[in-house]
Amino acid sequence: MSRYIERLTPVPEALRLLEERVARVEPLGEVPVWEAVGLPVAGDVVAPHDWPPRPKSAYDGYAVRHSDVPGRLRLVGEALIGRVDVGFRIGPGEAAYVTTGAYLPEGADAVVPEEKARVEDGYVIVEEPIEKWRNVDPPGSIVRKGQLLLGDGSVVSPADAVALLDAGVTSVSVYRPLRLSLISTGSELFTPSDPEEARRRILSGEVAATTGDFILWFISSYTPWVEIVDTALLPDERGAVAWTVKRFLERSDIVLLTGGTGPSNIDLFYQLAGEIGGELVFRGLYVRGGRPTSAYVVGGKPVIGLSGYPLSALHAFTRLVYPLLKYMGRVTRAHPPPPFVEARLGAPVKKGRPRPVKVRVEWRDGEYIVYPLEDNLQLTSANVGLAMADGILYTGDQPLQEGERAIVLLYREPRGGGPQP
Amino acid sequence: MSRYIERLTPVPEALRLLEERVARVEPLGEVPVWEAVGLPVAGDVVAPHDWPPRPKSAYDGYAVRHSDVPGRLRLVGEALIGRVDVGFRIGPGEAAYVTTGAYLPEGADAVVPEEKARVEDGYVIVEEPIEKWRNVDPPGSIVRKGQLLLGDGSVVSPADAVALLDAGVTSVSVYRPLRLSLISTGSELFTPSDPEEARRRILSGEVAATTGDFILWFISSYTPWVEIVDTALLPDERGAVAWTVKRFLERSDIVLLTGGTGPSNIDLFYQLAGEIGGELVFRGLYVRGGRPTSAYVVGGKPVIGLSGYPLSALHAFTRLVYPLLKYMGRVTRAHPPPPFVEARLGAPVKKGRPRPVKVRVEWRDGEYIVYPLEDNLQLTSANVGLAMADGILYTGDQPLQEGERAIVLLYREPRGGGPQP
Repeated sequence: MSRYIERLTPVPEALRLLEERVARVEPLGEVPVWEAVGLPVAGDVVAPHDWPPRPKSAYDGYAVRHSDVPGRLRLVGEALIGRVDVGFRIGPGEAAYVTTGAYLPEGADAVVPEEKARVEDGYVIVEEPIEKWRNVDPPGSIVRKGQLLLGDGSVVSPADAVALLDAGVTSVSVYRPLRLSLISTGSELFTPSDPEEARRRILSGEVAATTGDFILWFISSYTPWVEIVDTALLPDERGAVAWTVKRFLERSDIVLLTGGTGPSNIDLFYQLAGEIGGELVFRGLYVRGGRPTSAYVVGGKPVIGLSGYPLSALHAFTRLVYPLLKYMGRVTRAHPPPPFVEARLGAPVKKGRPRPVKVRVEWRDGEYIVYPLEDNLQLTSANVGLAMADGILYTGDQPLQEGERAIVLLYREPRGGGPQP
Repeated sequence: MSRYIERLTPVPEALRLLEERVARVEPLGEVPVWEAVGLPVAGDVVAPHDWPPRPKSAYDGYAVRHSDVPGRLRLVGEALIGRVDVGFRIGPGEAAYVTTGAYLPEGADAVVPEEKARVEDGYVIVEEPIEKWRNVDPPGSIVRKGQLLLGDGSVVSPADAVALLDAGVTSVSVYRPLRLSLISTGSELFTPSDPEEARRRILSGEVAATTGDFILWFISSYTPWVEIVDTALLPDERGAVAWTVKRFLERSDIVLLTGGTGPSNIDLFYQLAGEIGGELVFRGLYVRGGRPTSAYVVGGKPVIGLSGYPLSALHAFTRLVYPLLKYMGRVTRAHPPPPFVEARLGAPVKKGRPRPVKVRVEWRDGEYIVYPLEDNLQLTSANVGLAMADGILYTGDQPLQEGERAIVLLYREPRGGGPQP
């Protein structure tokens, strides 16, 4: 890898170059639905049988034979949800109390709502006629055998687990989790433990190691199909970093590094070429905030160098690595959705390469309005501006005018409360 | 508590009645910033000192005395970020290599960008003049002592941790976590362990216990200031449930129950009144999907009964309990933002009490377009529809026309990819 950055590769091209070279995960086989949450399904999930398999009550009330109603029916028992084998059937002139979701006792073909009947001396009195299958889910009425429930690559969400278990789908085929490791590099970094000591060290110029954690936050929150296998914090020493990259590659599908991507003598990433083998895929990304981002691929496994600056690293990560993690992990539809919203600019943003701009975010009249912190130029680059901001605006190549719309990574409820029921 | 639901309390009123009666958490004291993530700050966080405390380089290049430039300057050393006490100062006619974020060596008052200088035989040659403080963040230029960084009740996000640590703020005062327990009730429920056995039991009418997990998913994903203390799955036996509620109240600020909120003999919630003491606050909520939701308050602690049906429970939880958890936990601005988006209807939705409608979600021309699953009426109530849907639309009291906008809980990336950079 060349030391200097000679050509900045646009993100779409960098992503394509990586996709052409990396290995994707293979199916793991069938796993119980309750263990599949967070993993993408391998192949379409279709209903294995009609649902419900027998008529189910769709209301709390009285299961009857529709032809007996109106009339005075003998109450012969109750069929509650979850209580199987009620031990009786509904004969002519009979009725049973049923709850929503319970299987109808045999013989019944309609449910009279509780509030449209009255009970006297063990008899149910119904004044009005009722149609067949009224307040009943007949067999196969909800889902037919073979109907598509979840498409290939959909990450199983907790809502899907509820859905599948309710319909008797108790296992699904999934892809195996993608294994990721992360190395934070930088001799200036320290892991804070005591607040007073940490404050002294920061004021005297040392740097708390936060970039790796910032990336790991995004991964653990928004890519549940990625398993974080190993992490390490290392000084800028080539031997130690190269040795650790090789060791992590043995157990990982992808290795990320933060820091050391620049061209200086102490920057390590460009110096790893001879040590870890593999192919240099690109050196330098066409963005501002993450510009030195570079990547090798070693035996189908990407080794990606991100900036040591937290926001620059997150910027390149979200633009480039997040879609790559979806691709490698076989994810077509992610759960949870990533934390991006479309927002309207309350002030213009200057032209520049694609970059992250810290923004205050308001929720007004059903849309997000964002105000760049650029009125204070220093805050543009300083990390402390992240506390004063609520989100990060992703610019394109062109200047943005007031009133235009753009994508924002929102990490805090906006001022004004946000879209809530 | 009366057995029957006599008046449905609108959500805003139910929330107000609870807020008037519950205790809120108190400050916990100062904690290290890296342990504060997910907790709301107690009181405003302001900058404890000017930042930076000394001039910092804002660029990779050469630290100089601006009055020496243009000129040929002797290179006397380098000052890298994180390397403290460089051991030299910049005298007349001298320069030092500096990286972005490094403190300037004493004597220097400007930074010449690397690309606007060249180095020859230990000298730096600069052709153009430079202003004082150019490419430098002077002391206090980023943040002034006393400036507001995070307002009272803002939940500390990972971005805030990066921000605060970067500026030497290493501890913050926070509120203590809110302690929550949850009891799932229902004799029909079972905890699945083997997929084949689970499938047999579900097909014969038993119910996999998913409602509690569905609520706990939302809590663990979107209310990091809430600590889940205890959970239990219990049959519909009054003594066992009442005993467990009392036991959980000893260690919790709020106890949730799922199931048993109806008026039937086997429904327990209304029967707890005499057992757990406290005050009945409301019985029945003006919603469809969570209608029997009811609440006691016992010594300032809410005991809230939610539906046993997953979607109904989540519906009432997100409308009523989520804002209550913010209130009790002293949260003014949540991190992460809850998963709601504003969407446009691609088809009308019928009138009805506020209710959850399963919707397919598309991302088209910069907005979410939603299509209710109501074309298949059975899917409206059946849980399995959650797999075919991508989100849950929250209706108000009025019918919604095609083209109108409404709030949607989005649990999956929409078809078409969603807002992404």
